[in-house]
Amino acid sequence: MAVYTKIDDDALRAFLAQYDVGELLSYKGIAEGVQNTNYLVRTSKNQFILTLYEKLVDEKDLPFFLGLMEHLATHDISCPLPVHDKKGNVLKVLGGRPAVMVTFLDGFSISKPKRHHCADLGAALAGIHLAGQDFKISRANTLGLEGWQEILDRPELRIMDKEIKPGLFAIIETELAFLRENWPQDLPSGVVHADLFPDNVFFLGDHLSGLIDFYFACNDFFAYDLAICLNAWCFENDLSFNMTNARALLSAYEKTRPLNKDELAALPLLARGAAMRFLMTRVNDWISTPEDALVSRHDPIEYLRKLRFHQQIKSVNEYGFEK
Amino acid sequence: MAVYTKIDDDALRAFLAQYDVGELLSYKGIAEGVQNTNYLVRTSKNQFILTLYEKLVDEKDLPFFLGLMEHLATHDISCPLPVHDKKGNVLKVLGGRPAVMVTFLDGFSISKPKRHHCADLGAALAGIHLAGQDFKISRANTLGLEGWQEILDRPELRIMDKEIKPGLFAIIETELAFLRENWPQDLPSGVVHADLFPDNVFFLGDHLSGLIDFYFACNDFFAYDLAICLNAWCFENDLSFNMTNARALLSAYEKTRPLNKDELAALPLLARGAAMRFLMTRVNDWISTPEDALVSRHDPIEYLRKLRFHQQIKSVNEYGFEK
Repeated sequence: MAVYTKIDDDALRAFLAQYDVGELLSYKGIAEGVQNTNYLVRTSKNQFILTLYEKLVDEKDLPFFLGLMEHLATHDISCPLPVHDKKGNVLKVLGGRPAVMVTFLDGFSISKPKRHHCADLGAALAGIHLAGQDFKISRANTLGLEGWQEILDRPELRIMDKEIKPGLFAIIETELAFLRENWPQDLPSGVVHADLFPDNVFFLGDHLSGLIDFYFACNDFFAYDLAICLNAWCFENDLSFNMTNARALLSAYEKTRPLNKDELAALPLLARGAAMRFLMTRVNDWISTPEDALVSRHDPIEYLRKLRFHQQIKSVNEYGFEK
Repeated sequence: MAVYTKIDDDALRAFLAQYDVGELLSYKGIAEGVQNTNYLVRTSKNQFILTLYEKLVDEKDLPFFLGLMEHLATHDISCPLPVHDKKGNVLKVLGGRPAVMVTFLDGFSISKPKRHHCADLGAALAGIHLAGQDFKISRANTLGLEGWQEILDRPELRIMDKEIKPGLFAIIETELAFLRENWPQDLPSGVVHADLFPDNVFFLGDHLSGLIDFYFACNDFFAYDLAICLNAWCFENDLSFNMTNARALLSAYEKTRPLNKDELAALPLLARGAAMRFLMTRVNDWISTPEDALVSRHDPIEYLRKLRFHQQIKSVNEYGFEK
């Protein structure tokens, strides 16, 4: 959420001259995304987001992320379209960083999602899953079961009981063992967004206008992606579960891509896993980010409470969804 | 250079509904200005900068700053025009902060100013000085001689010799005494920008397109404002003096607002004062900003070297300017 790499006007104009995008009119560093430097660039032809990838993004994953955005954008998904330069290249270098220009999407994030937002989201998520089916590159989910265990094994995280909540380490250890024991082996899978929080979904005039930030996308169970959205969109600020939102999300998803019996049965478990995924990264960030840093830390306890909620769920019907 | 106050979509839409600016299309927190929160807001009618004033700006100065921008913008100076809401108000509240919307200016800052940029700058600066003459509010310069002394008197700055440069405190003390002894009493004065660095001047297609950031504006000698620009625009990165730029700046200024004999004679001294002003605030910021803060600290030594340069100057002719 800051501009890490400064680009001066000469460098930017030389960079833009390699594209067929017209003359530079203005550019502003924007506070979008935590991991990268982003500029909103206006030219005489259009508006773009220029992203410089900072060290947190693994360069070898960029062809997957960029190829996926281009694949989806050309398959009727409203997401940023990477712009090709005059030689046809998408991935370039600027300010010593891998750099990409994508088209600008109108719209803005919704802070308090309602039923109709969740319905739009469900349809869009199923749309990604279907459109991604003939995408040729794949990428393993580094933040799956093994990834959670790796985070837990970091010696510096041992202070979580003291820093965050007494007994947290044991709770996580027990839950991780349960998830490893019960994780499904064989559900419909393909490309998932894996981070489709309200921040990453734009609306315009109450309709979904765009999906952004594909930098956690990977191959995994489709229903796991839905479970991530269930956690991110269907709890109130006080962490009560909003069944109206959940029903809208699941029903709209189902209409575009029907869920099979195994997926429906696995959903409560996948939701526990999805809660674990964000609990783990938030615990990790909480301990490694200084309290006074300008980057805001997300509360890990929020995801512990979501995990607790799903532990009580016996079947998908309890989310308000019946097939 | 960060978004300090987060505004959600509901709050922003309710805020925009008080104006006649159309529907919200998008908004992004931008990294513009060090002191305030700024959003670039696109609506169906136009683009705006929405500024929330953080604690560093004194609220009682806002009517001066905003009135000045409106006065200048309506007197043919290309600067942001504060937008009135439907009731005619400019200064409002959003997210618990004083908040103002201004028009968006195309253009971008030049990192390596050339002769023609300095000529445009000189004309624009003189234009501000003339246009400001019938502006009715005034504001004392809090960063003048007395302000520099106040900063020097802060006990915590005593570590500057150790933290920045051995002997720096005595150099500043001696120079301050000299400036106090010799500071002119009676030069043409009025509203000055007082911070017209390249960051605050936009160009488009090699012509000046806008002036921004009036939050240091105050009443002072016009020639002092010119001296600030001389320091900010007429030194190379290696701190060699660029006489071509200086000549262009001074000549273009002179064409719009002729400098009298006293102003010309005082310019080297005013340039020492202008160097002192930024030396003092940079020393202060250097010592009070942690090394690892995301806000970048400006090197104080740059302005010590500029001060040293002007100490050797006997007359304005040595800047390359002859009248």
